[in-house]
Amino acid sequence: MAAPVSLLDALLGDEAMAARFGDRPEIEAMLAFERALAEAQASCGLIPPAAAVAIADAISSYQPDLAELRSRMAADGVLGPGLVAALRARIGEPHGRWLHFQATSQDAVDTGLVLRLKPAVADLDSRLLALLDLLARMRVAQGGVVLMGHTRMQRALPISAADKLEAWALPLRRHRHRLAALSPRLLVAQTGGPVGISSGLDGKAEAVAAALAARLGLGVAPCWHTARDGIVEFGQWLALVAGSLGKIGQDVALLAQNEIGSVRLAGGGASSAMAHKSNPVAAEVLVALARATAGLSGTLAQAMVHEGERSGAAWTLEWMTLPPLAIAAAAALRHADAMLRSLSFIGAPD
Amino acid sequence: MAAPVSLLDALLGDEAMAARFGDRPEIEAMLAFERALAEAQASCGLIPPAAAVAIADAISSYQPDLAELRSRMAADGVLGPGLVAALRARIGEPHGRWLHFQATSQDAVDTGLVLRLKPAVADLDSRLLALLDLLARMRVAQGGVVLMGHTRMQRALPISAADKLEAWALPLRRHRHRLAALSPRLLVAQTGGPVGISSGLDGKAEAVAAALAARLGLGVAPCWHTARDGIVEFGQWLALVAGSLGKIGQDVALLAQNEIGSVRLAGGGASSAMAHKSNPVAAEVLVALARATAGLSGTLAQAMVHEGERSGAAWTLEWMTLPPLAIAAAAALRHADAMLRSLSFIGAPD
Amino acid sequence: MAAPVSLLDALLGDEAMAARFGDRPEIEAMLAFERALAEAQASCGLIPPAAAVAIADAISSYQPDLAELRSRMAADGVLGPGLVAALRARIGEPHGRWLHFQATSQDAVDTGLVLRLKPAVADLDSRLLALLDLLARMRVAQGGVVLMGHTRMQRALPISAADKLEAWALPLRRHRHRLAALSPRLLVAQTGGPVGISSGLDGKAEAVAAALAARLGLGVAPCWHTARDGIVEFGQWLALVAGSLGKIGQDVALLAQNEIGSVRLAGGGASSAMAHKSNPVAAEVLVALARATAGLSGTLAQAMVHEGERSGAAWTLEWMTLPPLAIAAAAALRHADAMLRSLSFIGAPD
Amino acid sequence: MAAPVSLLDALLGDEAMAARFGDRPEIEAMLAFERALAEAQASCGLIPPAAAVAIADAISSYQPDLAELRSRMAADGVLGPGLVAALRARIGEPHGRWLHFQATSQDAVDTGLVLRLKPAVADLDSRLLALLDLLARMRVAQGGVVLMGHTRMQRALPISAADKLEAWALPLRRHRHRLAALSPRLLVAQTGGPVGISSGLDGKAEAVAAALAARLGLGVAPCWHTARDGIVEFGQWLALVAGSLGKIGQDVALLAQNEIGSVRLAGGGASSAMAHKSNPVAAEVLVALARATAGLSGTLAQAMVHEGERSGAAWTLEWMTLPPLAIAAAAALRHADAMLRSLSFIGAPD
Repeated sequence: MAAPVSLLDALLGDEAMAARFGDRPEIEAMLAFERALAEAQASCGLIPPAAAVAIADAISSYQPDLAELRSRMAADGVLGPGLVAALRARIGEPHGRWLHFQATSQDAVDTGLVLRLKPAVADLDSRLLALLDLLARMRVAQGGVVLMGHTRMQRALPISAADKLEAWALPLRRHRHRLAALSPRLLVAQTGGPVGISSGLDGKAEAVAAALAARLGLGVAPCWHTARDGIVEFGQWLALVAGSLGKIGQDVALLAQNEIGSVRLAGGGASSAMAHKSNPVAAEVLVALARATAGLSGTLAQAMVHEGERSGAAWTLEWMTLPPLAIAAAAALRHADAMLRSLSFIGAPD
Repeated sequence: MAAPVSLLDALLGDEAMAARFGDRPEIEAMLAFERALAEAQASCGLIPPAAAVAIADAISSYQPDLAELRSRMAADGVLGPGLVAALRARIGEPHGRWLHFQATSQDAVDTGLVLRLKPAVADLDSRLLALLDLLARMRVAQGGVVLMGHTRMQRALPISAADKLEAWALPLRRHRHRLAALSPRLLVAQTGGPVGISSGLDGKAEAVAAALAARLGLGVAPCWHTARDGIVEFGQWLALVAGSLGKIGQDVALLAQNEIGSVRLAGGGASSAMAHKSNPVAAEVLVALARATAGLSGTLAQAMVHEGERSGAAWTLEWMTLPPLAIAAAAALRHADAMLRSLSFIGAPD
Repeated sequence: MAAPVSLLDALLGDEAMAARFGDRPEIEAMLAFERALAEAQASCGLIPPAAAVAIADAISSYQPDLAELRSRMAADGVLGPGLVAALRARIGEPHGRWLHFQATSQDAVDTGLVLRLKPAVADLDSRLLALLDLLARMRVAQGGVVLMGHTRMQRALPISAADKLEAWALPLRRHRHRLAALSPRLLVAQTGGPVGISSGLDGKAEAVAAALAARLGLGVAPCWHTARDGIVEFGQWLALVAGSLGKIGQDVALLAQNEIGSVRLAGGGASSAMAHKSNPVAAEVLVALARATAGLSGTLAQAMVHEGERSGAAWTLEWMTLPPLAIAAAAALRHADAMLRSLSFIGAPD
Repeated sequence: MAAPVSLLDALLGDEAMAARFGDRPEIEAMLAFERALAEAQASCGLIPPAAAVAIADAISSYQPDLAELRSRMAADGVLGPGLVAALRARIGEPHGRWLHFQATSQDAVDTGLVLRLKPAVADLDSRLLALLDLLARMRVAQGGVVLMGHTRMQRALPISAADKLEAWALPLRRHRHRLAALSPRLLVAQTGGPVGISSGLDGKAEAVAAALAARLGLGVAPCWHTARDGIVEFGQWLALVAGSLGKIGQDVALLAQNEIGSVRLAGGGASSAMAHKSNPVAAEVLVALARATAGLSGTLAQAMVHEGERSGAAWTLEWMTLPPLAIAAAAALRHADAMLRSLSFIGAPD
């Protein structure tokens, strides 16, 4: 159900990350929210236990009508109303009314996003760790090669490949620390109901939020309907990661110049016109991904300006910017890994 | 062969525009380039007429192996080498060698892009024209309604709906003039060969370029491998269009506030939590699209910094930014049209 | 009265362009607007001729109290009210009331901006022309030098310095055409009054607008209070110019690498640590200016989303982005000129 | 020696923050670096104690020749060489050679920046704290006022002013935590020497770095010449802060609409045309600052792509983006404080 990989995605995409932003995973995550909400509310005595069971049953066998949901999405501007209506019709009364009880679309959509960001965060962290391991192994194997250091694109003084590899690794280590620090702010359930104040829950809003979050394996936080700093911070982090990898790509493209020849890349890109060429494609792609994510992170930050208790405009802007940011950062990690595996440092003769 | 419309695309996409950036249209446009190049070169006596016939025949029956092309795209960083290799294998010798003669991948890819931008430009212009017609009809039907004008979001002095509609229409008219002026710079074939100087064509480079462009219905221009101002200018224009429509959307969202109530929108978006609400979804989407395109246009402009005779990094950055820009601007035109059709001005009581 | 050139401005600024955005030139331009408005309105019989004389007299001898204007600017968010109040007090009654008659601050501020952009446009165009002349002279003097062409940062095939110079010049020529085309959209007076409909002018709004524009040497256009496409288009053009110059800078930085050595720059930057170095400072600055202007142009485009009949937020965003854009583009022209004057191409040995 | 406050700065600037980016503070901070470096190197036995004394003496009485430094800045692209040359001339031999021993301009410039960011960070944090205190006091005084909540700019359900104030405060609290977490990554001295490997220090590089940092009250970190994640992260944080304040501004502008009238602002901006108006200037300025900082943060992130052991282009781009980011965020804090002090919530009648 993931969109087929296009030619461009084959170069610039990342299948695992892109799959998380597909329709099916989104719907499944929202269904997980609705089910957990009903169970949490039943456990708190807010809705009948039988309703929670009926809701869970209906969800477990629900097959979304994507054409219908698309149509509702286009009309409502958000997936919530269409999905809730379809589920309610399926559950029927008397239990249907307890679905999505005192919740709002944003609760389901945001929590559904976070449920998918959680494995994305773990995936990104393990890719960073793997890249750091690779850099460490390269340091052992090739660290002693002497390279010419360049400042302002001019020959400066010699450095070792170990120096270069360490300069590449240092920010990646910091990115792991940053990710660990921001994750508890990001990986939290969204609750708040129509206007963000969790009304209509009979004084049990906190208990429901805690039970919901526990069922979903997420953290608890005050309603963040209109405070998007957690999302934007994550997008900024993705740009930092892609930026550090873009620096590696830029270095490799420069070192791979024939006239410098300080790295060799196995399996460079072919040219349609010049058989003698071996293009440092991955290095260039890393630079392009860094620039694209830098720009996207700035656009995502425009979504901080949120009107009132919910901004359709600002929220929609997130949907246009966060997925391509995450996919581009993941693609950068993929390319960096492959590029570095193919890379050999070559000592400068003098 | 277009990617299936996702839920998000149902809201924020535009099928007609997105289709132009799909794999099949791209491949077909590149094939059109290769065929026209062979025919142009044959007409200029550079390659054997029989080769041009064989190339055209092979192209007309060619069924691309997308999996193979994806794999080559990922390795080469550009579609050219894989496509040319597949076609050459299909043509066989003695004619295969004349395919893509003295050309480079960028000639095929850029010309292929422009071939698809040509109908996109016409489409965008006719949508702008239709929107201007709609605004003119609204002016006739509703222009006399008296609205309260607002400056700095405060009540100022009355204006008429006709004033408002004219303020919306004026920049759209200018955008049509801009598009007419930029099109001859944009809709030009790309030729230049490996390093942009059309070498190896035996003094016939200009004749080939003219014949190629004529066959493809494009203009002739000096090689623009590394001068991307035409592409970036078009992206900037797309942001201008989406920006002007975002201003309409912002106005409508403000006028549709219950407390102001100066416009009524038939068929607003439903809320999953509040049955009384009718959300101005299209208005908010227009604002989001304006902000997304503004950001993308700035990122696309980063691609002006092109290294040497071809930058993989800068060129790849275009591929990541121009298609979403075009799709977002088209989506904005689609939403503006639908929103305005549903809109009635309501006179202010005082 | 221009701010003293800071250390950073010595590198990244442009005195002539920055001066146009200083306080005094802004105040003078707004005074020119108020005087021309009074004269135009008197010529149309809307205000007493004696009032126009009194207004002109007061303006000619007015010495602004900058501290007071700063204080009013901070309170009102725009220079208009404070300046008009100070002038009215100076003129006194019975003529003071006719100052700024039926006008709004935005009329004065926007027209005042355009009055300063007019010489800026001429200046930028003549700098582009001078740069094109320089490139043409370089072509005559050095065009025959053979360089190695590089694609994707790899050695490709030889080109001549003439090819390189022509690739640099082509987009600059197009930028001059673009500037000529956009200038009539940009260099227009702003009139419209409080809510943009030129009310209260007794049917003489068009005559006043024409007379005002004629006196100021500007074009006439419908009110553009909320349609900022002309301003944003100019900002985008500035980014195009800086982008094309950034491409030249990037090329020079690459060609100036010691290992490539295809250009020599007289008078490169010194290093505090390495006496042997000669840094291609201007080349790097051109790249930085290109990237800064690209980003600024995208941010400026956010100002297209204008609320109602005047948006303080969007308008203020222009003030934060257009001046640095113009200064950066001018600085890029300055650096490109100096860098190219110091540049010699060096033939590749093989 | 700070630039005089311009009219625009009176609205959009922040004197305290801007002063930190003036020429004198920059020079003083670089002098502090050079002095501390000499003392640290003397304490480690790398340079003669008498040299450190002579260097300190010369620095304490040094009066920079700004015209000369400007000229060198323009030529060298960085302040280091000119400043070091001027100081060396002043110190004379035999001690002058020990100034800036084994250091590079970037060590002095980056450490000099961090020395000024340290009080900036403390200032921003105390402004955030003060704003949180203000919001808390407002909650006590006005929290019980009932407002209408709005989602997607439509009336939704009632909320209290306390709910609104808490929604504004929550992200500010998180920003303080973020700042505390990022400060140790940001407030670190820069050492590394010509190519970042602290060569020529006789095995005492770590000891010198530690002694230098201790003297300057900064943290110790590995060389970050080309890993700019700390700087970019801080710029991103500034955009988060301004974004959260922009959300408050947007809310206030919406609530202050005459038709909604849920807040009253004492001392709104005057209109030059409409005496009845009171414009929510600070609210609009907050939105403009949020959008400007969002854009700048994306442009700053482009500076992550750093070539080799030092990129003049990427580093220069930081200089163009970080100061306006910091000033804009500080201005936003200033405006938010003043606006909120003037704000009264007004209960909705129904």
